[in-house]
Amino acid sequence: MVVYLVGAGPGDPELITLKAVKALERAEVVIYDRLANEEILEHAPNAKKIYVGKKAGEHYKTQAEINQILVDEAKKHEIVVRLKGGDPFVFGRGGEEVLALNEEGLNVEFIPGVTSAIGVPTTLGLPVTHRGVATSFTVVTGHEDPTKGEKQVKWDYTADTVIVLMGIGQIEENTREMMKYRDPKTPVCVIESGTTPQEKIITGTLDNISKKDITPPALLVIGKVVDVYKEMKSN
Amino acid sequence: MVVYLVGAGPGDPELITLKAVKALERAEVVIYDRLANEEILEHAPNAKKIYVGKKAGEHYKTQAEINQILVDEAKKHEIVVRLKGGDPFVFGRGGEEVLALNEEGLNVEFIPGVTSAIGVPTTLGLPVTHRGVATSFTVVTGHEDPTKGEKQVKWDYTADTVIVLMGIGQIEENTREMMKYRDPKTPVCVIESGTTPQEKIITGTLDNISKKDITPPALLVIGKVVDVYKEMKSN
Repeated sequence: MVVYLVGAGPGDPELITLKAVKALERAEVVIYDRLANEEILEHAPNAKKIYVGKKAGEHYKTQAEINQILVDEAKKHEIVVRLKGGDPFVFGRGGEEVLALNEEGLNVEFIPGVTSAIGVPTTLGLPVTHRGVATSFTVVTGHEDPTKGEKQVKWDYTADTVIVLMGIGQIEENTREMMKYRDPKTPVCVIESGTTPQEKIITGTLDNISKKDITPPALLVIGKVVDVYKEMKSN
Repeated sequence: MVVYLVGAGPGDPELITLKAVKALERAEVVIYDRLANEEILEHAPNAKKIYVGKKAGEHYKTQAEINQILVDEAKKHEIVVRLKGGDPFVFGRGGEEVLALNEEGLNVEFIPGVTSAIGVPTTLGLPVTHRGVATSFTVVTGHEDPTKGEKQVKWDYTADTVIVLMGIGQIEENTREMMKYRDPKTPVCVIESGTTPQEKIITGTLDNISKKDITPPALLVIGKVVDVYKEMKSN
């Protein structure tokens, strides 16, 4: 018995790895979150599919419920795939699921995916590092756990490039926090629905990005690499 | 005419994307760096292969020479693949190559890859983020440009997890710098030759990691997520 914890990539169904496809082809059950493109499930035509993501207007499953489904399915089947968008350990709560499976003595193997944090800007031609411009980047979630009460995350990231995943609803609070530590004129690129046909790009600066202009899912790339990208586009 | 700038993934030849394989299959020329596994080139059996990576004891090509080869090949062929380990924009100098091609009016498309920075720890079961432990991570190169003279990079990264790629030769200077800002007992995991059969893992703390114990290529993961990984292993 094995559970494969698998990354599905950033959206474009061709940005999945060969290894992930092989695991899907062998799976008896696929337990999946909301995916940018469900075409990926076609790699597992005979598997039982269990959706555990959010549904508009409906109760969605808690992490504890998802963990229980994983444990139950893993006890009943030889090969289970737990499929997550991007990479399973980049804000995917993969670790919690692994610990729940481990507690029941169940075996987990890991297949990384192209995270949206890098795959989305790279597909666009936006380099997250660039010699002489950026030798480090930070990836952070813009969606702070609301149960934590008061804002606990400081936005004082010192890396040259900052990539913000999720949490477009909190974007103005977050950019305001970040301006305490970084020039308000720092260039920003917002990418909606990256790597999909719905992709949309907005560029601006820290002080003029407005959530009114943005439809999730979207991510932000903040830093001088955005100017390198604009230079490439203008050539 | 198109040049595809393609990420080959972290080492395991199955950690390449379907999209990268399709580009390789169509390529007339593949221009590649040192790869963890040259099996990947078998996806392009009929293409001309041009190696531009380092060779032990030999002169290796400068970035300007590589840019010139790219431009020359792109002018002679319909489909050129520029193949890089990991993701082409994570310390891959991909941006410089794009600018050189753009200057000659040559068209570039981008296919992201699984970066070693995330793909190597994920394959191991080491989560770079984990609820309640790490909601941000920074990726940085440990290899500072020696032409810059005095050390210019401050190691005051505030993200919960820090991942250091390359530069094992400078590891002791870098961890010493980092201890100015971070508890010397912060857990560290060193992964040599990640995702390959030669993979080797060393765990320790910031104050006891020694370059004597490490054979490159290796990367470091620094932060409390290393304790989550150890908890998983011990279950």
